[in-house]
Amino acid sequence: MAEGAAKGSEEPGSPPRRRRRDPEGHRAAILDAARHAFGERGYARTTLRDIAGRAGVTHGLITRHFSSKERLFLAAVPGNRDLEQVAAGDPATLPDRIADAFVRRMETDAVGDPLVALVRSAASDERAAADLLSAMQEHSAAVYRSVLSPDGTAARDDDLDARVALVGSLMIGVAFSRYIARTDPLASMPPEQLTAHLARMLRHILFD
Amino acid sequence: MAEGAAKGSEEPGSPPRRRRRDPEGHRAAILDAARHAFGERGYARTTLRDIAGRAGVTHGLITRHFSSKERLFLAAVPGNRDLEQVAAGDPATLPDRIADAFVRRMETDAVGDPLVALVRSAASDERAAADLLSAMQEHSAAVYRSVLSPDGTAARDDDLDARVALVGSLMIGVAFSRYIARTDPLASMPPEQLTAHLARMLRHILFD
Repeated sequence: MAEGAAKGSEEPGSPPRRRRRDPEGHRAAILDAARHAFGERGYARTTLRDIAGRAGVTHGLITRHFSSKERLFLAAVPGNRDLEQVAAGDPATLPDRIADAFVRRMETDAVGDPLVALVRSAASDERAAADLLSAMQEHSAAVYRSVLSPDGTAARDDDLDARVALVGSLMIGVAFSRYIARTDPLASMPPEQLTAHLARMLRHILFD
Repeated sequence: MAEGAAKGSEEPGSPPRRRRRDPEGHRAAILDAARHAFGERGYARTTLRDIAGRAGVTHGLITRHFSSKERLFLAAVPGNRDLEQVAAGDPATLPDRIADAFVRRMETDAVGDPLVALVRSAASDERAAADLLSAMQEHSAAVYRSVLSPDGTAARDDDLDARVALVGSLMIGVAFSRYIARTDPLASMPPEQLTAHLARMLRHILFD
């Protein structure tokens, strides 16, 4: 799809105009280039310039669409990107949906997961890791708030932010133990058992 | 102390015998050399040969005392090493003691902490990270079991092992967020508030 869009913009006659007038095509081309670049070089070592080169767009166009490298990353890879859809629904069963989606996602592709990229990025560039984790947490906190306190009546938002950060920390640690260091007992735990443990813990962290 | 022991073994007359007959002095010299080497080069890049060189002992003597690099590491740095003392006491308040000791230890010296070394080591050497995490979890599980089920009557040991691994994962994630990426809200949370959150979560993970 992204390739198609890029080819379309190279048709003779009106390439510069197509470029300007096809924001969706550019967005798709940027996301596609970002997925490949991050996948090959890892989060910390990929630059917006790399991605611009691959997508055949300017650096400026990327920041106009995505504002920063960490936001582009989160838009490009599964994970935070899909949180709105996963979170939508009955607040009481939010922990179950989050736990289930997390385990499914990691079982499918842990290597390409933003949490794994986050942990790996810390080794080469702590600043990059900090920016990435901040962007993830900001987004997560907004999504959790929209489900748990849609009318803004949650007792204290600070407290909800802290709880969401603790949920994030738990997931970082589980991703590390099961999918990076791959150490037992978590590494060999059946996915449904891990999901049950996480749902129970998330329920406690968020509601207790 | 370690230096004194090393000097003692070089006194003229009986150096080879002193070496063999001063296991406590050697142990201390090895631990001292290990602390410095791990602190300077990080866990993954330090070899037992480096440490042997610094301590003035053979590689074989180190493995006789500590059996492996990860066990030496855990014996040398604060953290797992002190778990027996922290854990001893009323099982009902174990979560509070663990949470309090974890936060105190990290606030004092996060850079030298085994959990931070663990996360950092994964970037350069996943095998090293896996071995280190396994050794930490094995030790933790044994200590938790000795407090929570001293007569071996805990319903299912597998389940306790899984719970201890989840406690470890939570701590890895919190160490990452607060002390490596240093991202808010966890980074700026007052220590006593973090301790309270962790104690509550540990109680749930271990007992619920």
